[in-house]
Amino acid sequence: MNAVERSVRASNGTCEAEGAELAQPARERRSIEARLIERLLSHLGNPPIEFLLWNGERVSGSGAEMVHQLRIADRATLFTLFTDSQLGFGDAYSDGRISVEGDLIEFLETVYQSTARRAAAPPSLLQRLLNRRYAARPNTLSGSRDNIHRHYDIGNDFYSLWLGSTMSYTCAYYPTPAATLDEAQVAKMHHVCRKLQLQSGQSVVEAGCGWGSLGLHMARHYGVKVRAFNISHEQIVYARARAQAEGLASQVEYVEDDYRNISGRYDAFVSVGMLEHVGVQNYPELGRIANQCLPRHGRGLIHSIGRNRPAPLHAWIERRIFPGAYAPSIAEMMQIFEPWDLSVLDVENLRLHYARTLRHWLARYEAASERVKSMFDEKFVRMWRLYLAGSVAGFTMGTLQLFQVVFAPRDNNEIPLTRAHLYQG
Amino acid sequence: MNAVERSVRASNGTCEAEGAELAQPARERRSIEARLIERLLSHLGNPPIEFLLWNGERVSGSGAEMVHQLRIADRATLFTLFTDSQLGFGDAYSDGRISVEGDLIEFLETVYQSTARRAAAPPSLLQRLLNRRYAARPNTLSGSRDNIHRHYDIGNDFYSLWLGSTMSYTCAYYPTPAATLDEAQVAKMHHVCRKLQLQSGQSVVEAGCGWGSLGLHMARHYGVKVRAFNISHEQIVYARARAQAEGLASQVEYVEDDYRNISGRYDAFVSVGMLEHVGVQNYPELGRIANQCLPRHGRGLIHSIGRNRPAPLHAWIERRIFPGAYAPSIAEMMQIFEPWDLSVLDVENLRLHYARTLRHWLARYEAASERVKSMFDEKFVRMWRLYLAGSVAGFTMGTLQLFQVVFAPRDNNEIPLTRAHLYQG
Repeated sequence: MNAVERSVRASNGTCEAEGAELAQPARERRSIEARLIERLLSHLGNPPIEFLLWNGERVSGSGAEMVHQLRIADRATLFTLFTDSQLGFGDAYSDGRISVEGDLIEFLETVYQSTARRAAAPPSLLQRLLNRRYAARPNTLSGSRDNIHRHYDIGNDFYSLWLGSTMSYTCAYYPTPAATLDEAQVAKMHHVCRKLQLQSGQSVVEAGCGWGSLGLHMARHYGVKVRAFNISHEQIVYARARAQAEGLASQVEYVEDDYRNISGRYDAFVSVGMLEHVGVQNYPELGRIANQCLPRHGRGLIHSIGRNRPAPLHAWIERRIFPGAYAPSIAEMMQIFEPWDLSVLDVENLRLHYARTLRHWLARYEAASERVKSMFDEKFVRMWRLYLAGSVAGFTMGTLQLFQVVFAPRDNNEIPLTRAHLYQG
Repeated sequence: MNAVERSVRASNGTCEAEGAELAQPARERRSIEARLIERLLSHLGNPPIEFLLWNGERVSGSGAEMVHQLRIADRATLFTLFTDSQLGFGDAYSDGRISVEGDLIEFLETVYQSTARRAAAPPSLLQRLLNRRYAARPNTLSGSRDNIHRHYDIGNDFYSLWLGSTMSYTCAYYPTPAATLDEAQVAKMHHVCRKLQLQSGQSVVEAGCGWGSLGLHMARHYGVKVRAFNISHEQIVYARARAQAEGLASQVEYVEDDYRNISGRYDAFVSVGMLEHVGVQNYPELGRIANQCLPRHGRGLIHSIGRNRPAPLHAWIERRIFPGAYAPSIAEMMQIFEPWDLSVLDVENLRLHYARTLRHWLARYEAASERVKSMFDEKFVRMWRLYLAGSVAGFTMGTLQLFQVVFAPRDNNEIPLTRAHLYQG
């Protein structure tokens, strides 16, 4: 694909230059912006995206029919896409300086698919510039408290608008495509409990418990005692009130403390959706804690967003949405288990379940967007729309994964022979 | 536990020294051999093992009741246990210079459990000496041919004595503990085919096909076309004859060639029990081939013996039984998939199935031991007994794992939503 094969259309939408013989005169009239956009699109494998510029100019790559349109408000906004594409796009979208005509998820899927395909080739200078890297916020004891506070403490009322009745803020599990969000969240909790083979009278420690739904579910349906740790004050307050209201306060203890301060012995260790906030350098420490918690017959489960290979989180997500977050590859996750000779028994990739969960969240979020705007502002509404839609696209295109890892001490021979018990009843 | 708490008994079996107050005089009479053995046993956490020496001396660690007895023929044999424990023990056992009184598997389980528990602590100088490392034989194209020839070409008649009617020389799958070996091998093949979602008319490439059972099974039960690669001449000859006899030669092609020479596109890629012979340095190349074989809707499965963390194969096994073999950790296995952005969908650890499979093999092997002796010699009989029994012990104690890894191209969205289909019917 070379430059002369591309078309540049004027704002009236008619074709000014098509075919090689007409390209040269057209090229002379093209702006520097148009040429930069073409170069960018070419680097992305020419996804079917048309740029609508502030001056009425329309620029696209070549190839497939243009199905997505990206409206850019001004020259400065366009240039941030070249100097810092991830942060630049996210911030400009949030401010309304960039808008996407048509379906936002499909647009982002197109971009992610192009980007992931390009990622196999060695990066060009332009790409290296576009892939400016940010150091993630550190997850020290105080760093973690700050990072977690910035995301999870922005308001239980806000989250309750779109998370559904379980208030589970992690990937659900859809036994069938027709399951509702609430059904799928309950099914996820059962799936986790079956993987842990919970039995009445046993004890469980939970690292990172969100608004407490899993702890309550385990206590109610499996008759276990739970100690659940979380450093989000808002979440702990909510979870405690829930345990009280549901008459489970004697079975489920919510502890406002860091997972690094877990002590004691338990039949099972579980952590759903906390690993993203731990930081790879702390994985051996997390494994040490899990290992120290578990007797020979014990078993554990860690559920986390992941990657096919190591890569920093999307810079805009890490900066604006999830400070300090990171999605590990499976090999990176193994740094939790290897130092302690823990056996990995089962890894299940639930990426399509997370795409589905996020679509359900996004639909509820959009239905409540006026309420969100009244709680925050229009910029916030757009930021979280982009975060949710971008996450759908990531899980659909496989640039994000969701790993559920079951593990046990090396010499635990009470593990089930097969996984059939997960699929009965 | 200190030295004076240990007991040294004379050959008549009566206790000459028990309790601290009597230890000193006894100690003076103890041989240098006895003191070295005590030190060794102490380093292993004092497993309940008693050494019966050539001169009638009996030496044990302290603690639990002595349940295992190890008979050592001479001083030189004892000293090889200190200078090169893995190779020394295996070779001496094969020659009959060491024998184990009572159950061999239980003895080896005791040793592996002690060794694995010690492995968490930093190694002492003695341990470092005992853990002398051997470089595994290289798996270049010609090195692999040589390595494979040395194990798999020793005689189809020999293997048919104990592998069962399927001639599958890999971990079986026991849907219930009562399944027979043949039932479990057939169940394994169905389990693999379901994981691959094979559909009639599709094509499969198999890297390392043994005596051809999986290829025939896939063709017969799933209506697929199979190209199966193997560099063991004896196995290929056997597999081709079988395909001919079963009327499946037009559906299953057995190719006597290295997996590195696989070309073409297939709906599925499968490799059961070959990875142990690939060598970690060749994993990215194996992944390149799998990735190149698979269209977007493709999927693959790799089944291999593994480890909880990187460690060389037991030196005696690598030297005497499986030249060039290595059992990778999950993180090491990820070097197959990461460079190509392949998604890992499912990892299942079947270690207890391999312990069961090996017990079934060993029972058949023992029943045929006179026949094996007539084909080879007594030393061979003892070598393979040790190899099979040691493998049972490794899988039972979790020093060995068995990983089945399902993978697919990143953007394959035709993957099943759940794994329930593996457990229906």
